[in-house]
Amino acid sequence: MNAKNLTLVAGRSHLELADEVAECLDVSLTPQAVYDFANGEIFVRVEESVRGSDAFVMQSHCAPINTWLMEQLIMVDALKRASVRQITAIMPYYAYSRQDKKHRGREPISARLIADMFKAAGADRIMTVDLHTAQIQGFFDGPVDHLFAQNLLADYVDTRYGRADVTVVSPDSGRTKLAEKWSDRLGGRPIAFIHKTRDPLRPNKVVANRVVGDVKGRTCVVIDDLIDTGGTIAKAARLMLDEGAADVIIVATHGVLSNQAAAVLATCGAREVIVTNTLPIPADKRFPTLTVLSIAPLLARAIREVFEVGSVTGLFDGHA
Amino acid sequence: MNAKNLTLVAGRSHLELADEVAECLDVSLTPQAVYDFANGEIFVRVEESVRGSDAFVMQSHCAPINTWLMEQLIMVDALKRASVRQITAIMPYYAYSRQDKKHRGREPISARLIADMFKAAGADRIMTVDLHTAQIQGFFDGPVDHLFAQNLLADYVDTRYGRADVTVVSPDSGRTKLAEKWSDRLGGRPIAFIHKTRDPLRPNKVVANRVVGDVKGRTCVVIDDLIDTGGTIAKAARLMLDEGAADVIIVATHGVLSNQAAAVLATCGAREVIVTNTLPIPADKRFPTLTVLSIAPLLARAIREVFEVGSVTGLFDGHA
Amino acid sequence: MNAKNLTLVAGRSHLELADEVAECLDVSLTPQAVYDFANGEIFVRVEESVRGSDAFVMQSHCAPINTWLMEQLIMVDALKRASVRQITAIMPYYAYSRQDKKHRGREPISARLIADMFKAAGADRIMTVDLHTAQIQGFFDGPVDHLFAQNLLADYVDTRYGRADVTVVSPDSGRTKLAEKWSDRLGGRPIAFIHKTRDPLRPNKVVANRVVGDVKGRTCVVIDDLIDTGGTIAKAARLMLDEGAADVIIVATHGVLSNQAAAVLATCGAREVIVTNTLPIPADKRFPTLTVLSIAPLLARAIREVFEVGSVTGLFDGHA
Amino acid sequence: MNAKNLTLVAGRSHLELADEVAECLDVSLTPQAVYDFANGEIFVRVEESVRGSDAFVMQSHCAPINTWLMEQLIMVDALKRASVRQITAIMPYYAYSRQDKKHRGREPISARLIADMFKAAGADRIMTVDLHTAQIQGFFDGPVDHLFAQNLLADYVDTRYGRADVTVVSPDSGRTKLAEKWSDRLGGRPIAFIHKTRDPLRPNKVVANRVVGDVKGRTCVVIDDLIDTGGTIAKAARLMLDEGAADVIIVATHGVLSNQAAAVLATCGAREVIVTNTLPIPADKRFPTLTVLSIAPLLARAIREVFEVGSVTGLFDGHA
Amino acid sequence: MNAKNLTLVAGRSHLELADEVAECLDVSLTPQAVYDFANGEIFVRVEESVRGSDAFVMQSHCAPINTWLMEQLIMVDALKRASVRQITAIMPYYAYSRQDKKHRGREPISARLIADMFKAAGADRIMTVDLHTAQIQGFFDGPVDHLFAQNLLADYVDTRYGRADVTVVSPDSGRTKLAEKWSDRLGGRPIAFIHKTRDPLRPNKVVANRVVGDVKGRTCVVIDDLIDTGGTIAKAARLMLDEGAADVIIVATHGVLSNQAAAVLATCGAREVIVTNTLPIPADKRFPTLTVLSIAPLLARAIREVFEVGSVTGLFDGHA
Amino acid sequence: MNAKNLTLVAGRSHLELADEVAECLDVSLTPQAVYDFANGEIFVRVEESVRGSDAFVMQSHCAPINTWLMEQLIMVDALKRASVRQITAIMPYYAYSRQDKKHRGREPISARLIADMFKAAGADRIMTVDLHTAQIQGFFDGPVDHLFAQNLLADYVDTRYGRADVTVVSPDSGRTKLAEKWSDRLGGRPIAFIHKTRDPLRPNKVVANRVVGDVKGRTCVVIDDLIDTGGTIAKAARLMLDEGAADVIIVATHGVLSNQAAAVLATCGAREVIVTNTLPIPADKRFPTLTVLSIAPLLARAIREVFEVGSVTGLFDGHA
Repeated sequence: MNAKNLTLVAGRSHLELADEVAECLDVSLTPQAVYDFANGEIFVRVEESVRGSDAFVMQSHCAPINTWLMEQLIMVDALKRASVRQITAIMPYYAYSRQDKKHRGREPISARLIADMFKAAGADRIMTVDLHTAQIQGFFDGPVDHLFAQNLLADYVDTRYGRADVTVVSPDSGRTKLAEKWSDRLGGRPIAFIHKTRDPLRPNKVVANRVVGDVKGRTCVVIDDLIDTGGTIAKAARLMLDEGAADVIIVATHGVLSNQAAAVLATCGAREVIVTNTLPIPADKRFPTLTVLSIAPLLARAIREVFEVGSVTGLFDGHA
Repeated sequence: MNAKNLTLVAGRSHLELADEVAECLDVSLTPQAVYDFANGEIFVRVEESVRGSDAFVMQSHCAPINTWLMEQLIMVDALKRASVRQITAIMPYYAYSRQDKKHRGREPISARLIADMFKAAGADRIMTVDLHTAQIQGFFDGPVDHLFAQNLLADYVDTRYGRADVTVVSPDSGRTKLAEKWSDRLGGRPIAFIHKTRDPLRPNKVVANRVVGDVKGRTCVVIDDLIDTGGTIAKAARLMLDEGAADVIIVATHGVLSNQAAAVLATCGAREVIVTNTLPIPADKRFPTLTVLSIAPLLARAIREVFEVGSVTGLFDGHA
Repeated sequence: MNAKNLTLVAGRSHLELADEVAECLDVSLTPQAVYDFANGEIFVRVEESVRGSDAFVMQSHCAPINTWLMEQLIMVDALKRASVRQITAIMPYYAYSRQDKKHRGREPISARLIADMFKAAGADRIMTVDLHTAQIQGFFDGPVDHLFAQNLLADYVDTRYGRADVTVVSPDSGRTKLAEKWSDRLGGRPIAFIHKTRDPLRPNKVVANRVVGDVKGRTCVVIDDLIDTGGTIAKAARLMLDEGAADVIIVATHGVLSNQAAAVLATCGAREVIVTNTLPIPADKRFPTLTVLSIAPLLARAIREVFEVGSVTGLFDGHA
Repeated sequence: MNAKNLTLVAGRSHLELADEVAECLDVSLTPQAVYDFANGEIFVRVEESVRGSDAFVMQSHCAPINTWLMEQLIMVDALKRASVRQITAIMPYYAYSRQDKKHRGREPISARLIADMFKAAGADRIMTVDLHTAQIQGFFDGPVDHLFAQNLLADYVDTRYGRADVTVVSPDSGRTKLAEKWSDRLGGRPIAFIHKTRDPLRPNKVVANRVVGDVKGRTCVVIDDLIDTGGTIAKAARLMLDEGAADVIIVATHGVLSNQAAAVLATCGAREVIVTNTLPIPADKRFPTLTVLSIAPLLARAIREVFEVGSVTGLFDGHA
Repeated sequence: MNAKNLTLVAGRSHLELADEVAECLDVSLTPQAVYDFANGEIFVRVEESVRGSDAFVMQSHCAPINTWLMEQLIMVDALKRASVRQITAIMPYYAYSRQDKKHRGREPISARLIADMFKAAGADRIMTVDLHTAQIQGFFDGPVDHLFAQNLLADYVDTRYGRADVTVVSPDSGRTKLAEKWSDRLGGRPIAFIHKTRDPLRPNKVVANRVVGDVKGRTCVVIDDLIDTGGTIAKAARLMLDEGAADVIIVATHGVLSNQAAAVLATCGAREVIVTNTLPIPADKRFPTLTVLSIAPLLARAIREVFEVGSVTGLFDGHA
Repeated sequence: MNAKNLTLVAGRSHLELADEVAECLDVSLTPQAVYDFANGEIFVRVEESVRGSDAFVMQSHCAPINTWLMEQLIMVDALKRASVRQITAIMPYYAYSRQDKKHRGREPISARLIADMFKAAGADRIMTVDLHTAQIQGFFDGPVDHLFAQNLLADYVDTRYGRADVTVVSPDSGRTKLAEKWSDRLGGRPIAFIHKTRDPLRPNKVVANRVVGDVKGRTCVVIDDLIDTGGTIAKAARLMLDEGAADVIIVATHGVLSNQAAAVLATCGAREVIVTNTLPIPADKRFPTLTVLSIAPLLARAIREVFEVGSVTGLFDGHA
């Protein structure tokens, strides 16, 4: 690889991941001056010439999420004005991906706004992992390299729990399709999901959670794309156990782990909770049953394919 | 309503619906000259001055679907150049909505392309009914009035089958969320879905369809957004009956009804198949157990709200 | 030529021409999966990695013209999202080129719409042959490689009929300039055209066709850019013969040949009708006096110049 | 008309026309401060509030043509930033309209550039008279009100020369179509044109001008869209007389009249030369046989239709 | 004023100012649901129909500045998709206005990025007060209503200190022009500024501050556009006193007041520090010698002029 | 350097500078046909293939300034359509840079308009020298290589006058910041500026010019970015001498030298007037005390860095 022409820069949100990616690529992060003004405005300056290079700008969209978003946008603007050849904005977790449609009138579609803002700033391509919905790819006016962490997670689960009687469980009706994909990947396991019944007289008031599908005596692998406060998925875990599940494993790509998520998950009865490090997971969010798999090798391979104009799709046997 | 300033034009795909909408609005369709050149190129000319008016351009995206798409785009171009004030492109069924993401690498996102083409032609707003996925709203750079036919369909089903023991059935794992919405709307009914198991050695080869959820002895309402060839949904109906369902009702917004769909549906064992007329359903696609509800009143109410700058969201109790 | 980096893909409209171009270039067409859904929606997937390559997307805009247009746009979208370096949309005949202006108010300018749609889809450059009017080049916001088939056609005519007393004839007043160019190319031949007289009391009613210029006893070469139904040009041929022409030869770049064109041309009295294969000419449109010259070598040379950043203008002695 | 909301401003190129238009509309020109800095940079300030108004910005593109172009663009920019509701740029003669295509490779398409510059500056609509080619309408991304001066000119010619044996003459092969339109408008007169023969050994060297069509003993009305230096059209007039024409009348919309045009036309043997005042014709360009018809009433009527959202097409019996 | 059509919404940064503006306008703030997700993503929903209205979206860009920026952008997106007629984004202090150029290579121009982001989100117009540099107006592609607080501040200063021997002081060389404007506004007072001398051997190391101009025995009015940490301006105040100034008054439009600004300013020797409430000034940032003037009446008058299509320039005697 | 791929073209405004730059780069200017039509429209044709090259388009924006602007825009358009790889528009002096903001309402921001016009024409990057205000960089949506002539000028001044007691003088309050930079560059010299007092009763009427800072007995180096008519700076020079300055030196980057500037400067008492040749300075604008330094070597070095994707910032020790 012609290191001279690859520029890898990272915002301040998750330097550990950036360092790991740089190591996988055997390059150094391009030095930058980045600091905050007293009123919170962010200043960025790239410290080396980057003219004509392929620039990759990494940022994890964790809290303070709007700050890190702006920092990444400002970095993109600086690189654009510094005459780089092309800019790939890497956001392992895509901020605001849950606001991908108007649930009701007069709402924003913030995930589209994010795409447009990166376009306006000068990003040519977006690289991201396991979007909340794959349609978000279509929000960006340009190529999106959409990476899948499922292989990484499923291989781990298969190795550890593949001999058990696994049922794949979606914690709500919206992730049943994803459960089916997991079922296929694990060799054709049964699936189940939790049906939330709402009170017709009180809008949005959930009155009951019914399990649809068989979970009794089985090892339930509860899957989701992200775990935020952990409330829904912990409730799902407990419901599985109440319904007679032998064991519960929780798997998700993005460990947002807001508020008391660590405590909630640690005490929900799950034997293991597995996430990747698309988002930083500091010590105070870690707990004994948590396993964190590194996404860095996958990101590094994808960057290399983009840089060497190889094939990102090829990384997933033609499925990406 | 100031009829002088509302321009309602329609392509040739589904004039019956356009006439019905015009009648609901108590306006006339603006006359146009529309014809094909010998090589298939479409010519359009608006026959009355439309300068400064609010223009609504209706087209149903049925076969020959690319022809009707181009016709609508050309109509939008003609209106833009004729100095109308704003243009709402009405597509009761949104073409290419199933290609809303890259399932694998090197695929198009045709639903985004459609949005961009209408933007390029000059459309200011899109009005559509029951998108395949709601995220498509975010593909258009401007307001999208997304109308729901569910109320219309659910009221009909409730009146006819509300006293039976209904289970709402999603014909595959991807529509389970929609089934849950139907369950709520019908007063908290159980739901089920069909889990397709794939052969791990032969990609995309479905080896079995398992019903997840209870259907025995129940009236199964199989729901979907559209019925194309009818294969999947007819198979679902038969599976329900095989599993002991008392009755099967099929409901969908868009009756595409391609190929032998009419025959397939007529003989699948369903007691009734219910769709709307977002797409034309000519005589040779009709069969005794088919019921077609008209979407025209809903479209007309929405047009009126847009024209009178009222509230479209208000038509759905704040849910649109 | 670095074949690895040249991607040549073709829509389904005219694979024979694409194959011939590929052969001239000594490359293979990049494999694609292309098929229609039951409702006519087109699906495209490029089957090999194309990241970073120069992509050329061929499509002949013949009937069903709107289908082939959409297919080409979808192919461009797929390539854009697959991170190719640049996209050249090749349309040997440019669809809707006759709708290049508003003849009257409230008409579209569909040829501009086509240009904007290709821009929106992601095309960087357009390559086309003998536009109906050269101004269409200005409709696209980017480079247009406008190739001329005239040399090809004129060399053929000169070889076959150069010793006769040739008059170049424009079939209507709008092509007189083109006739003059042909006259120059053939060594300074006289020209003539047909003046259509309209009835002042009945708009657009042609009452007489007068030949302006000398045709008696001469070999009349009637030229045009395209032959659609053949009506106008056949009438011109007959008029020439009525006025005493010794012989009539018909020459045009684009053989659209709609409806009964083959029969009309075969029986109009012309000794030979000469077109290129910018559009497919299936067996049932061929007739004994029809000669079809291949445009493939010219397209291949132009593609090579673009790919090798040579000069397309150089192919025409500085005239393109 | 609600004068309060109509803003009519004019550049310094042709204030006489602007005043005449204002008078026809019964409005005052909005006052502006306009002057040149010492180095030629133009300064503009609108002196009254124009927020929310419909603005019409008049400028005649005469020499110094680039200065007046920039002045009009700067005026459009000032109005855009002053929050007017919409801006119509009026250019009775559209600058650079002869550079509407690449005649050869590596040429600009300046007429498209002009359209894009007005778009970039903030113009919403263009109003112009008798474009060199009607395709230029398609260069602007928005409505173009294309007015025709032909009725005005033809009525004048008909009144003065309608009883003579008129032949309509195109001065070169490119205006034959226009000659046919004049022929129709004057009641079905014969047409003729001048065929320029080029020397095949010396590119662009015209070796002979042949008249195609009958002119002997007839009153030849030589038509064109513009007269620049007058050379071509004066030569045409003389050729007609040499060929035995009884009389020659020259008619064109735009009297550019560069260099010695006045002298050339005054002495070419034409009985009368008729133009409009789309461009200013100062005293030193006037000569006894020159007639200048005013375009102001037509512009005023079109402005009124735009402002009152009536029909511009209606001004031309549906032909614009 | 037709209150029905004016929509005034405000982000959460400075509701006190929004309420005051609403009161001046005699309208209510349009209700919204606004809250943060656990991971910091902001959700916004407008609670009333706003279709067709003129929307004004207020936000003060104070800390946490990136959060409030994103909130305002999301509000603009929601309003755009809710079909409002036009959107004015009101930012009394314009975030990142100090990063209005590249001071050195490879820096961003964040103030331009802000403008582009608001354009991308859907803002039609920006309203702001006393930009750091007036050139920022040119960063937005559309009208900017740039309001001046100087009159408000200068009238206050004139009333309180007009009888003293005032010298207007710029705290650095970059604000001397502003000092000159203040000098004019206060009746032709002398001006002074502080010249910072840098060490040629140590870049950016200021070695001395020299006062240029007379300050001895005079009432020094130190002016600036904003006070951030207060360090520079407090140092200026002390320098004035050291140089024998009789009194020091500090005046600025934007009271950012970061970190220990309150303490620094309270103890710098200035008799009075005067700012406006473009940014919120909570109790813990207030100190006895601080005076806060309200900008609300000015914002309200400007909103009214925009809404009623009157003149904003007129508010400043033609100077805005 | 791969001369084959570098295209250097120049407009007609200042061929001497272009030749000098070409010589520094050891390349030839790419031949073009450029001429004016009789009505002042400019025609450009590039005479060699430039496909795929890096094009640099030089033009000095001197009088007739609007003509040279249009010529450069037309050249950019021609190159864009000729498929060059990227276009850098070089404007050593940026036209209309003084109109970089609205001084009052309803003014244009012509410097932004210039940036947008170059973007619309197809320029990818702008290269310019010493902008009137650095914020203009942010007007262009893309990279701007902003070169500084200060080093060149300061080295000259330092060599000639470095041993004298220098005071750097800003001719008005707006250039004080620039004076401070010069002071630093010359080793920490004192600075002064001229304070213009306006008559409060007569707007814009300057009643007095007061020198702020010490000039008595010193060598005053009066600095500015440009000298137009020379009036202000000559008045400054005289004022310095009246106040007892020992000597006056005038330095500016851009020698516009309009009207009687040469005479005014020659007789103002300055010992030397130093400018660069960003603009042509013909013989009749030269006078004995004028020194013209060449900017060509700096432009050539910057072009080389852009072409070889090196660092332009590096040319200024990281300060550009």
